[in-house]
Parts: sequence; structure tokens; C-alpha cells
Amino acid sequence: MSSQPTPPSTGTNLDPWYNTYADRAAGLSVSEVRALFAVASRPEVVSLAGGMPYVSALPQDLVVDAMNRVMVEQGPIALQYGSGQGVPKLREHILEVMALEGISGSVDDVIVTTGSQQALDLVTKLFINPGDVILAEAPSYVGAIGVFRSYQADVEHVLMDDDGLIPDALRDAIARVRRDGKTIKFLYTIPNFHNPAGVTLSAPRREEILHICRSEGILVLEDNPYGLLYFDGPPPAPLRSTEDEGVIYLGSFSKTLAPGFRIGWAIAPHAIREKLVLAAESAILCPSAFSQLVISEYLETADWKKQINTFRGVYEERKNTMIAALSEHLPDLSWTNPNGGFYVWVTLPDYLDSKQMLPRAVKELVAYTPGTAFYADGGGRNKIRLSFCYPTPEQIRLGIRRLTTVINGEIDLLETFNATGPLQTMRPERSFTAPPPNLG
Amino acid sequence: MSSQPTPPSTGTNLDPWYNTYADRAAGLSVSEVRALFAVASRPEVVSLAGGMPYVSALPQDLVVDAMNRVMVEQGPIALQYGSGQGVPKLREHILEVMALEGISGSVDDVIVTTGSQQALDLVTKLFINPGDVILAEAPSYVGAIGVFRSYQADVEHVLMDDDGLIPDALRDAIARVRRDGKTIKFLYTIPNFHNPAGVTLSAPRREEILHICRSEGILVLEDNPYGLLYFDGPPPAPLRSTEDEGVIYLGSFSKTLAPGFRIGWAIAPHAIREKLVLAAESAILCPSAFSQLVISEYLETADWKKQINTFRGVYEERKNTMIAALSEHLPDLSWTNPNGGFYVWVTLPDYLDSKQMLPRAVKELVAYTPGTAFYADGGGRNKIRLSFCYPTPEQIRLGIRRLTTVINGEIDLLETFNATGPLQTMRPERSFTAPPPNLG
Repeated sequence: MSSQPTPPSTGTNLDPWYNTYADRAAGLSVSEVRALFAVASRPEVVSLAGGMPYVSALPQDLVVDAMNRVMVEQGPIALQYGSGQGVPKLREHILEVMALEGISGSVDDVIVTTGSQQALDLVTKLFINPGDVILAEAPSYVGAIGVFRSYQADVEHVLMDDDGLIPDALRDAIARVRRDGKTIKFLYTIPNFHNPAGVTLSAPRREEILHICRSEGILVLEDNPYGLLYFDGPPPAPLRSTEDEGVIYLGSFSKTLAPGFRIGWAIAPHAIREKLVLAAESAILCPSAFSQLVISEYLETADWKKQINTFRGVYEERKNTMIAALSEHLPDLSWTNPNGGFYVWVTLPDYLDSKQMLPRAVKELVAYTPGTAFYADGGGRNKIRLSFCYPTPEQIRLGIRRLTTVINGEIDLLETFNATGPLQTMRPERSFTAPPPNLG
Repeated sequence: MSSQPTPPSTGTNLDPWYNTYADRAAGLSVSEVRALFAVASRPEVVSLAGGMPYVSALPQDLVVDAMNRVMVEQGPIALQYGSGQGVPKLREHILEVMALEGISGSVDDVIVTTGSQQALDLVTKLFINPGDVILAEAPSYVGAIGVFRSYQADVEHVLMDDDGLIPDALRDAIARVRRDGKTIKFLYTIPNFHNPAGVTLSAPRREEILHICRSEGILVLEDNPYGLLYFDGPPPAPLRSTEDEGVIYLGSFSKTLAPGFRIGWAIAPHAIREKLVLAAESAILCPSAFSQLVISEYLETADWKKQINTFRGVYEERKNTMIAALSEHLPDLSWTNPNGGFYVWVTLPDYLDSKQMLPRAVKELVAYTPGTAFYADGGGRNKIRLSFCYPTPEQIRLGIRRLTTVINGEIDLLETFNATGPLQTMRPERSFTAPPPNLG
């Protein structure tokens, strides 16, 4: 009985239920930069922090027409509960989108989810016991690290370079983890226009990584929200296009259409798919029938491929603007130059701490995401992620100029105080600094 | 390394990842009655099994108008990511709905979720370690039992009668569980127009149950999707209206507006609310901005109280029709007579098994939900849940006539073979028989 909480009426503890939470709740911690991001969302701040797509490039009448047709033709179905796996017609349309990326599959293998974030959550719930290991790129998507922690997974980062995940680093990580007696449950990877690193996994490495995972019996969780948003030419074919029994593939309409509908999907091997549907039904009963039917109608009637082309043009111009501004103002730094997606990954001098620098940046009216957000192990201290998806080219130029002031000021300050000595005594911080979701 | 799965290429196992799942995945099992419910969804079958609201009673132009205004006035916001806790304006509207039930609170304490099912999932994720105990009415909501199992909770049922949960039974259950050295995390209760039992917790018992939970330090999870759908008069005030630190309250627009938007909410004590928001962000980033704004606009501009009145009238007529038909055709059985909500709970003769009888019923073109679906412990064998929410009064009469044929046929059959002996040797089945979500 001692494990029961004291009654709330005692009032001496700020949270009377403090001792009642599950062990996994410890993985849910408030971000230290959360308050700062709230400030950063003020209009005078140029935010290079967010991952919001530029939905204003989507002609609204296309969406409004689809909505109205859905309500006229299928109103009572749109307003009702639907199947836990998702509307069959939308799943057919999803296969058409997938065909563009070289993936073929059965309508039965597609599960519609509340954004691909929910698919991440369901897969993790399905596979992870506390202490199980998930292999993930270094750095990795902040929202995935958050989900993995919430199920008490250990994230083991695997090094990347400009060609993406390094196969030998993957081999080493597998051997190291297993030597420690731990169980690897899956490899989480974003092969295209990586969030946050901006790099793309090369075609030969895709084959090699699949080979490694096949021979080591490791499931692959392939997250591909940006694959169709390429600039110069399409990325290599997804892992799922050559391996259907060992890969769970995640896709999303959040970047190619709009995130406001919260519709993503998973394509999973048959047996896993059955369990994912049960997990999805348990979590939310079913995804929104209304959202699904509107997207289905949009895909049926609008020129959605042309619309994706429009998005590509918008983002390519913004990426080029950002790279040009970085080259002009911060030529001594290094950064990735992505061929698609939303993000540029910038490396600051070793002795700078991007999280400590953030309040100063917000004071100068520019925001970015500190690199530590993308590591489960305290790495990334001198990295920052810059997003070019939402701000206009003009805002991007202004933002990079302000960022230059901040970085140069920080370098000057540290040189003045000859601070390279004391800095070396600082330990990497292991705390998790997830920004709020609309900025992730 | 032996804990790693064999590579998928071996092909000797139907699921190559069989040994890779988390322990909790064992709680996700396919329902034995699932295939049968697929048959039962054919139009010639009168389904008294589903929990689908009669959305056709909602004038579609009210919804279409709200949609179009949202897209004209707030299109880019509706299509974008939003806050993890939900759109502030909708949370204000939710407080107006709550005021109708006697609940006051702060906008800060409301969390918008993907249906109240997601709130159930998040609360369970936040509090339950494997083996923790959740107290729940006997019977309880099938979808809640499913969530609880998916986090490896032990469900301890507490007896009800026509006035709802029995306080002395609650005291006994608490003492019994604690004597066994187990930890009780919360009491899950549906005080109004219980699903599936159809009964309502009396006002004096509400006080008594709150008193018990306060003094024993037990959190209450109050699930109230049907509270505004009363017939003769409103039910007693919710538990949350007199206790805000010890109750998490769950509400939903699925029954008072439409489930197709997948919008529900939780009202939680402050500290719990913060953790729930983090859990929600981890699970789905944010609920659909589009769905939230449409509902907010509907509540702002339409006469939603009148619309709830319309729903009340529809459901009351259907309930009266069902009770009259039961009285006429099956006078020897007993059933509950709910003052609101969607369900009547019927008790068959002891020696009938409602799950075994279901294939025969479907053959006679009528479907119901067997009582065992609503127990975590194999109880409810001779119970059935009948839903009056979706079928028309004419279909309800037809359905009850068909059900009468089935039940009388089953009784005749058993009497003919003098089967009461052999039946007594049957053990209650402990398997979980959740119907698919649109029928739950």
C-alpha cells in the first residue's frame, strides 16, 4: 500500500500524483528551449527553426472543391466512424503515390495513420520493450527520438557522412550493441533529404545497408516524408522498393499536400501490418474519415503531381537562397547542401554551443533549432538545423544576416575572454531538448 | 544474439518477426468475432451491434457552411500544423459545452485529442506499468479494455447494479487488490448511460465513490461521451464537477456532432495535463487543425444545443422502440432501460452463451455484441449488448423479432437435447473478443 500516492488533499507536493506515473513517463520531459520557441513564434522573429510546409503554395480552391464534393456525395460516410486500417479508396490512391517512388504493394499492406508520427508511435509500441535498442542516424529526427524515449528504448546513433548512413559504422554499432548483450529491434532511417542533416543515402549504400540488415536479421523502419520534394532529380529508390519483408515504410501527406489533415501511412510486411492495425484501433479507433475522403477526392480530381512540382520549385528557390546567404556571410562555416526536403545542417566552430547561443539569437530576432535536439546522447552541441521551408527568400536572407551577427558576436566574445580553455571543461549535456511539434 | 530474429529469407515462419515484438504486443489479438462482424455489416443484416451515431440527423449544410468559412477565413491555419494541446479557441468552446454539464475549468486544463479514445490511450500510457491494476465497472467499454491490455494492465472489475458502480464493491476490490500486493493506478468509470450496461451512477453514489477514491488516493478516469444525450432529464453532475484534482475527465464530439472529425478532449489536473500534452505530441505531434477549426466554427455559428436536442429525440424514440419490442417478444428476459446514450444490456438465461449464438443470429440477419467483449475476465457469457443508436425504429423492431427467433430457437435446441448438464462443464473463456472499432 505504500506505493499508492498520498491523497491529493495533502497539498504539500506540487503534483499529488507524482508517484503514480508509469516508469516510461520519465521519458516525457519538458524541453528547456520550449519557452524560448514560444517567444520565437512572434512575427518579428525570422524563424529558421520550424518544419512547417509552405501551405500557402497550395491553391485553396482545390481543397475546398474536394471538401464540398465529399460532403455532397459521401457526407454521412465522411462524418461517421470508419475502418481502423483506413478508407480503402485512399489506400489505393496511396499506392499510386508510392508508384512514383518505385514502390509497389497491395492495398492490404497500407495502414492510414494520424500523420506518419502516429505510425512511428505504433511501430515503437509494437516492438520496444524497455532497454531495447533502436539504431538511428547521428543526428536523427527529434520527433522520433521523443517517441523512442517514451517507450524506454535506448537509441544508438550511427554515423553519417554526405552520402548518408555509413555501412561500416552500422556494422560496428550492431557488433557493439550485441557485445553489450542488448537487443536491437530495428534501424530507423530517413534516407532522403535527411531531417535534420539534409543528406541523402547513396544508391550503393542502400543495397549495402539492406544486405547488412538482412543478414543480421534487423528490421528497417524507413521514414520518407520528403522523397517527392527533390530539386535536381529524384533520389535513389526507397529501401522498400527492393525489400518488402524486412522494411516498414512510412509516408505522409503533410509535406506534399498539407499537415492540417494529419494523414500519413505505413506500408508493412503482412504479419506486422495486422498487428499495427490492432494497435491503431486501440489508440484512436480509426483515422478521420473526413480527412481521408477529402485527400482521396483531391488525388482523384486535382493535378496533384503538378502541385508537388510547384512545391519543389518553392523549396528549391528557398534552399538556393539560404545556401547563397550562408556562402556570402558565413564562408568559414560548413553546411550540407540538400537536393530536396526542408533542412540545412550547419557546423559551427567546435567551441560554440548552439543551445547556449539561442537566447542571444532570439534577441536578435532569428531562431534555429540547436543540434542537441537531434541526438539522444548529448551530441550536436556545435550544430544547428536551419529550415528553409516556411520563410520567404527575403526572410531567409534577413535571418541569415541576423544569424551571422549572433555567431560572429559569440566568436568575438569567446576570443575576448580567451574562453577556449574553460569551454573544454564543459560536459556534453544529455538532456533532451525537443522543440514543440510545430517547430520540430 | 540469440534474441535476434532469423532473417526474413528463411521463410519457414509465417511471421519472420515473431520473436521481435514487445511483450505488450501479446495484448493485441485478433477478435474471434471479427470475421463475423464483417459479414454482419452487409446491408441485409440488421445490426444492433454497432456504436455508430446516427449522423444523418445532422443537417449537412451546417457542417459545409462551417468548413467553407474556415477555409475562406483561416485556410492556411487549417491546413498547417497546430499546437499539441489543441487550438485555443476550440478549447474555449469545449469549456462552454462543459458548462452545460456543470463543469468549470481553465482553457489551460483542456487537451484536444484524436477522439476520446486517444485520451484513454495517453492516460494509460502515462500511468500504467505492466501488472498495474485498473479498476473498471463490470462490464466496461470494450475499447478501454483493449487499451488497458495493450499496456499490460490488469483490469479488476467492480460490480454494478441499476444505480451504477456499487460503493461497497469498490471498497472490497481496493482491499482485495492491495492485499495481493498490487498497485492500483486509477478507477475507470462511465457514470452516465453506461456502455454497455445502460445504467447511470446515482447522485449519492457519486459522492460516496469520490470520497472512497480521495481517501484511498486513487485517481478517477471519468469517461462521459453520452452525458448530454439524456432522455427524461439530465443525469447527476459529473464527478469532475465537484473534484478537480483527483479526476481526469474525457469528453467527445463523436456523439453530439460527428465521429468523422475524430475530436475529443481530456480535462486533467494541472500537473497531469502537462504530461498528457507531451505524450500527445509524441504520439501525433498535434490533432488536426482543420477538424478543430471546423468544429469551433460550427459551435460559434450553429445552434448546436438545438442539434443535441434533435439527437436526443432520435435516440429516445429508438430506445423506446427497442424496449417495447423486447417487452413484446422476449418478456421472460431482463434488460436495462437507459435514460440516455446508445445501449440496452440484456441478460439471457444462464445456460445460453451469447458468443456461441452469434453465428446463428447473423444467419438470421441480426447482429449484436456478445457480453464477453466487455469483460477482461471471461464474464458476460449470457449477456448481450443491443445498440439502438444507428438502426431506424422499423429496423429495430425487425431486428428484435429476428433475435427472438434466434434466442427461442437456441432455448428449444438446448431443452431438446437436455443440454444443461454438458453446458455446466464449459469454462468461461478468457479470450478478448473486441469487435472492429466501427462496431464497438
